[in-house]
Amino acid sequence: MKASTLGLDRILRTVSDFLTDKMVPFPMVTLNLFLMYEGSMKISIIAFDEFTDIDVWLMWDLLKRVKNRGWQIKILGEKDSVVSQTGIIIPTHGNLNEANTSDVVLFTSGPGTRKKIQDQTFLSSFDLRPEKQLIGSMCSGSLILAALGVLKPGDRATTYPTAVKLLKEYQIQVVEESLVVNGNVATAAGCLAAQSLVKWVIERLVNKNLSEIVINSIQPVGQGLSFNEGEWDALYSTPAP
Amino acid sequence: MKASTLGLDRILRTVSDFLTDKMVPFPMVTLNLFLMYEGSMKISIIAFDEFTDIDVWLMWDLLKRVKNRGWQIKILGEKDSVVSQTGIIIPTHGNLNEANTSDVVLFTSGPGTRKKIQDQTFLSSFDLRPEKQLIGSMCSGSLILAALGVLKPGDRATTYPTAVKLLKEYQIQVVEESLVVNGNVATAAGCLAAQSLVKWVIERLVNKNLSEIVINSIQPVGQGLSFNEGEWDALYSTPAP
Repeated sequence: MKASTLGLDRILRTVSDFLTDKMVPFPMVTLNLFLMYEGSMKISIIAFDEFTDIDVWLMWDLLKRVKNRGWQIKILGEKDSVVSQTGIIIPTHGNLNEANTSDVVLFTSGPGTRKKIQDQTFLSSFDLRPEKQLIGSMCSGSLILAALGVLKPGDRATTYPTAVKLLKEYQIQVVEESLVVNGNVATAAGCLAAQSLVKWVIERLVNKNLSEIVINSIQPVGQGLSFNEGEWDALYSTPAP
Repeated sequence: MKASTLGLDRILRTVSDFLTDKMVPFPMVTLNLFLMYEGSMKISIIAFDEFTDIDVWLMWDLLKRVKNRGWQIKILGEKDSVVSQTGIIIPTHGNLNEANTSDVVLFTSGPGTRKKIQDQTFLSSFDLRPEKQLIGSMCSGSLILAALGVLKPGDRATTYPTAVKLLKEYQIQVVEESLVVNGNVATAAGCLAAQSLVKWVIERLVNKNLSEIVINSIQPVGQGLSFNEGEWDALYSTPAP
């Protein structure tokens, strides 16, 4: 696996911190940390009651198409299950506080975000570090990033049209774009922009080539996805819908 | 509600059959049937183990954005729950045989289709009538339509690249298109082609305008969905992600 810029930074920083404290032999530490990094990339999707179905499932399905890289992808929630705005009950895979030790944290959206930004118990579960983690949001999930202070006054961000006014109340500079990236923080808006958000994550963690293979695998036939056998081969690492 | 061509045909055919049998007063029958039609449009999404997550949820989420029309949208399966190919367990809303009395029946896809086309118990649950129902499939769901005889030898259809060879074994004329419509039967291929399939359903049941509002509501911001307030108004009948 080609170490991403993010991953390499983290490894080197951790190695450097560790060496200062303990002064153990450098090659042994780097080897151990590299192996740990290889097999333990944690990606968390944050869900809550009244989430927008497609804003969980598009991210989930796309991320799960990345095979054989030891990624642990989980849907996290406050309870054992959450209910979508259309009434679908889904089990969660872990508690919200697992987000704090994840490499990537992605907030979903839906009418439920309006309650969550007022919910101190929910908000206090998070202790996110944009300097160490990749953090993203779909649609009105950006409201939660603002409520958590991950988005700060003056930051550029995007959101769903119906959440623009509310996001501006946090003094965020709301722009009409599908994906806004500021360092390790990205906001996406409009359900299908989940493609851009996931593409950004895969590019940062692996490379551009894999991100394109994954996104290509869900395009309409004849509009990005073809019957051409060469392309099938490239897709065999992804599911066969 | 503007009656679609499909709906009007069905109403008139049923009225005509009924009158022949019973000779009850015509206006009373039409009124009752019209009210029944208004409030009871049944739309079924067929799921099974090893389904492709996004191929259920994109159809489901889009269809659920149609509000206030009395649509009953259900996910049907053989069991109380089905498991997606990524391991997500979802409860089903009813048994497969409800498909036979539905106005619209949409087959999802996934590796599971390869087992289902060999599964006589599964196949024998269906008694579909393309002359009365709208029937559609996502990706390799077309294999099930072929196994059921809804797609017949010589018919044009589309499917996911990895299922082309298998669909051709049913003597289907497989074409590299995202949506193929033959009367009341439509096949779509490539996950995001669910948009075209659902657009076709809404156009047939309601009208083109509503279908466009629904599809527009999931586009990336700045690429079909705008912050413009006029457009927000049009979207207020759909959820607020």
